Amino acid sequence: METAALRKVVIFGVGLIGGSFALALRKANAVTEVVGFGRSAATLQQALQFGLIDRIGDDVAREVRDADLVLLATPVAQMADILARIKPHLGSNTLITDGGSTKCDVVAAARQQLGSKIAQFIPAHPIAGAELSGPAAALADLYQGKKVVLTPLPENSPAAVARVRAAWQACGALVSELTPEQHDEVFAAVSHLPHLLAFTLVHDLAQRDNRELLLSFAASGFRDFTRIAASSPEMWRDISLANRDALLREIEQYAAELYKMHQALQQRDAGKLEEMFSLARKVRSAWTPQ
Amino acid sequence: METAALRKVVIFGVGLIGGSFALALRKANAVTEVVGFGRSAATLQQALQFGLIDRIGDDVAREVRDADLVLLATPVAQMADILARIKPHLGSNTLITDGGSTKCDVVAAARQQLGSKIAQFIPAHPIAGAELSGPAAALADLYQGKKVVLTPLPENSPAAVARVRAAWQACGALVSELTPEQHDEVFAAVSHLPHLLAFTLVHDLAQRDNRELLLSFAASGFRDFTRIAASSPEMWRDISLANRDALLREIEQYAAELYKMHQALQQRDAGKLEEMFSLARKVRSAWTPQ
Repeated sequence: METAALRKVVIFGVGLIGGSFALALRKANAVTEVVGFGRSAATLQQALQFGLIDRIGDDVAREVRDADLVLLATPVAQMADILARIKPHLGSNTLITDGGSTKCDVVAAARQQLGSKIAQFIPAHPIAGAELSGPAAALADLYQGKKVVLTPLPENSPAAVARVRAAWQACGALVSELTPEQHDEVFAAVSHLPHLLAFTLVHDLAQRDNRELLLSFAASGFRDFTRIAASSPEMWRDISLANRDALLREIEQYAAELYKMHQALQQRDAGKLEEMFSLARKVRSAWTPQ
Repeated sequence: METAALRKVVIFGVGLIGGSFALALRKANAVTEVVGFGRSAATLQQALQFGLIDRIGDDVAREVRDADLVLLATPVAQMADILARIKPHLGSNTLITDGGSTKCDVVAAARQQLGSKIAQFIPAHPIAGAELSGPAAALADLYQGKKVVLTPLPENSPAAVARVRAAWQACGALVSELTPEQHDEVFAAVSHLPHLLAFTLVHDLAQRDNRELLLSFAASGFRDFTRIAASSPEMWRDISLANRDALLREIEQYAAELYKMHQALQQRDAGKLEEMFSLARKVRSAWTPQ
């Protein structure tokens, strides 16, 4: 076994993302001590019982001072407050990373709250399924073979980025890097737009008088297409608003593509329909998720 | 074992749909003899080798004359020709059913080709996955627990409908009934529209310069949402055109819903977004496919 690279990790939010990070580091023998903070005493107790954390923190100042790494694994909306609370106590060797699904907004909040200590924050987005939540959903191998995108800032030193990269790699993740702006554009296209489209379809059917009849004939295609429409409304409200500009552009682009499909069908243009379906099939068939 | 209810079944198209129908009837001991017709000699030979059929037919007139049931399991576009070929030879006790995904167009073609013999045609749509095709994909339990929708015509006698219903039930299917018009509207909403939306998303991304970058970050949500975009372009071109009017209405309705989402996001209306996402989640979570 390699020696623990991290002596002490402090995690804010010990649910699926934070709890799995802790379990993965412990399984890899990559951390000596994990301290958990959170808003719910019951959740923290669960995390302790499940062995996700060694201790429940009760003094942010003391815990953060000598931590090697702080992970923000709360909803993005809570991160500014946490950053404001920890900033005065951050040790000079303490790095911060996060698990937020959007990056430009988190970076803006971090700049505002951390000021001159912004170099210590290395933003991250682990691409791991989040249909379940809470400490009970945490898994030691949640990040195994999954992508984690770092969006380093100009202020981050290469050594700081390398340390955060190593922590996510110790969890089994495949780490890549984008700028925060690139990140938000990419995820607007391949994640946020599909979620919004799936919500839209089910919302459309849900309002109809004959929705029971319709749904009784829906089959496996509908099942898979709409799976993500069962995602958390609060989380997706926040993600949509956080990445509003890129998502609005994606919706507009999609609506224009849908109009082309409508036109081809209206004009009974069999060749055009087949051409569009064929390109989609070719690209989709060649793609495999990591 | 019950005695075989069907002495002789003739199947046009011995691929996934037709071959599975044959296998299921044989497994249920519900048929004595299955005769296969098709355009490809190689496919027919395969069907014979795999035990889907007892014989390859070579004389439509002779085989159809004393058949209890004829199944049209070819692409919908070929059905009119087959109906024209078999009409002069149809025994008075011979019933016809089909496996087409759209019904108004098949019914119109059948009325035109069968004329006064239209009472012998009981249209059907088995709701069974069709990602694979050909005799090798046929399964004895493809229809087990799956829905089959009959769309009986005013000319069909109750006894004729009952015989076709019994045949599909012998395959393990859950048989229900809709009018052809209802059928096409229901499937425009819960099947044809989702397919077109998935094709549209992948087609949109496929045309972009940075598509490799985008797709490299797509994850399980994208995977499930776009699974149906790998469906057969030819088949979906035909389905889209066959159900054009209902599908155009669905696209227009969807575009209006998407516009509402766009507006809520543009206006940063968090409450409206959460309300729409919540209704979608509630309906989707309560639904389970059969």
